[in-house]
Amino acid sequence: MTELKTGGSQGYLRIATEEAFSTPELIEAWREELELPDVDPGFQSLIGFYINHPAERPKFIYDRLADLGETRLADMDARGIDRQILALTSPATNVLRDADRATMIAETANDRLAEACRAHPDRFSGMAACAPQDPRRAAKEIERAVTKLGLNAVVINSHILGEYLDNPKFSEVLEAAEAMDAPIYLHPNTPPRNMIGPMLEAGLDGAVFGFGVETGMHALRLITSGVFDRFPRLQVIIGHMGEALPFWMYRLDFMHQAGIRANRYEFLKPLKKEKVSNYLKENFYMTNSGVAWEPAIKFTQDVIGKDRVLYAMDYPYQCPAEEVAKLDAMDMSLEDKKMFFQTNAERVFKL
Amino acid sequence: MTELKTGGSQGYLRIATEEAFSTPELIEAWREELELPDVDPGFQSLIGFYINHPAERPKFIYDRLADLGETRLADMDARGIDRQILALTSPATNVLRDADRATMIAETANDRLAEACRAHPDRFSGMAACAPQDPRRAAKEIERAVTKLGLNAVVINSHILGEYLDNPKFSEVLEAAEAMDAPIYLHPNTPPRNMIGPMLEAGLDGAVFGFGVETGMHALRLITSGVFDRFPRLQVIIGHMGEALPFWMYRLDFMHQAGIRANRYEFLKPLKKEKVSNYLKENFYMTNSGVAWEPAIKFTQDVIGKDRVLYAMDYPYQCPAEEVAKLDAMDMSLEDKKMFFQTNAERVFKL
Repeated sequence: MTELKTGGSQGYLRIATEEAFSTPELIEAWREELELPDVDPGFQSLIGFYINHPAERPKFIYDRLADLGETRLADMDARGIDRQILALTSPATNVLRDADRATMIAETANDRLAEACRAHPDRFSGMAACAPQDPRRAAKEIERAVTKLGLNAVVINSHILGEYLDNPKFSEVLEAAEAMDAPIYLHPNTPPRNMIGPMLEAGLDGAVFGFGVETGMHALRLITSGVFDRFPRLQVIIGHMGEALPFWMYRLDFMHQAGIRANRYEFLKPLKKEKVSNYLKENFYMTNSGVAWEPAIKFTQDVIGKDRVLYAMDYPYQCPAEEVAKLDAMDMSLEDKKMFFQTNAERVFKL
Repeated sequence: MTELKTGGSQGYLRIATEEAFSTPELIEAWREELELPDVDPGFQSLIGFYINHPAERPKFIYDRLADLGETRLADMDARGIDRQILALTSPATNVLRDADRATMIAETANDRLAEACRAHPDRFSGMAACAPQDPRRAAKEIERAVTKLGLNAVVINSHILGEYLDNPKFSEVLEAAEAMDAPIYLHPNTPPRNMIGPMLEAGLDGAVFGFGVETGMHALRLITSGVFDRFPRLQVIIGHMGEALPFWMYRLDFMHQAGIRANRYEFLKPLKKEKVSNYLKENFYMTNSGVAWEPAIKFTQDVIGKDRVLYAMDYPYQCPAEEVAKLDAMDMSLEDKKMFFQTNAERVFKL
């Protein structure tokens, strides 16, 4: 493996677009939430594991999440990452049943994130957290984060206490993101209580499988419920190579249209752009977080568009330097690699 | 579009490997099951729709499912399909809470199917139905179907009243399939009660999305629970271009191994073949039912293997002649197309 360096000597900068951090306030709130009765089973499975487990992997991850300084920068240097686009780690405040506290934690996280970005403007950029549990304040926080803190995107860790963003109660949040021209990074969460059953029972509720189907479904719900007909300029970013939606595209189009024609569900109405795939190509960006795999990346570039596929590492959850080297070595033109690693991110996150 | 003909003049026969039929006994049992208290919500959503809805699509489908004679043969002729591999349509007997009745319906369906295959030996082949609700009798029926009826594969429509085939209670069924050298076609079902929640709420519980994630999860459970370490010669066929598991392959391997190393779930143990992908490549066949789309077919051929990707139409649920013409026109060598359309199926189903 050749040495990985920052600085762009290979012809492009490497901008990693789904990189996680935590705050002490969030970790404390998670610990308290885990002690409450009737805790969400996916949250218990995921965060109960990461916070308390003595194994090497969760310990490494928890130490790294907490750092927005020298350790993180050294890890980036060692992997040739020029810039991280930072997001408050999943499930962030989405699992907190106290909406006021969730809101305050998101606001504090944004202040801390903005500070780190100011301290290292050439290495860190960030996405705003918000707590959609209180849609009005979430909308206000998106506005503050963009106009005052310079955070040009929003991260929402999929379902909010089992509810989805197509629910009209969250309209203000989507409206604010669209108005601020801030894309929403729809990051995975574990499946909610009424979906997780057989995945939890088999140990497949987390990143290995449950994350992808939950978030893929959320993205799909946004499309089929008509969110992008209501907010046509809204852009959503999904990770993990589009949570497999590019691969499902043909079937999504066929069966969605068959269902519409048969009027199977009263509440599913024809879409303005007709096909699900039109929205995937015009209202979504997709990153390869967790999928350092040339075939899936190129497939997505081919069927969604090269200008909509972005590089992500998924630090600190998945950060082997070998993966960066493997992506550098993809059989892809330098021009396309530069879009993938650098210029698409610069455009989407207004760097 | 050029005329579609049977007979192989294009250099290969077209063998469609996931084609559905129904029996009057099954339809009657479904109607009665739908009237019982506490009916499975996915079954209610899917079959309640297909049986009773006046729209053109469900009516067309229900008429066609019932026919194993001239109408079906005419449809095959019009689409250039030389042979159908028939399977009792989903969810078949998997939803019936009366195990005896479920078993009898499966047995009768196999007799009817064998009769149709005898009547049209050059056009029809079939897979055996069984009711795993009574594992011992299901195992016996698999043996009878293979040795007496000439049905060389088994269809199981995913979860059985919310239970999965990795449950040790179903061991006899898997053992019989392995002993008879009969691959199991794991056909989709709607997600069970403890998974369907947010999909049903958004109208995404059926073939458009719920089918794929439920069945992909089932296939994955078989791997991660060690079914193929217990039954190493067992082969499983999954449709809909592998229910997207080929696309997820890199992430499945990475996160499964990370979970094993961290010992996150006590019941998840290391696998003999180590990686999930090794099982996908050695214990699975994948058909393109519902996915008449060159990019996804070629992707799967590339990452799983050309000898493991088979053609399917998904008649009568999805049967536009244009899809056959499109697949004929794929940019693929004649040799590879012949494997895809014909010779892989001949080998897997022992035609």
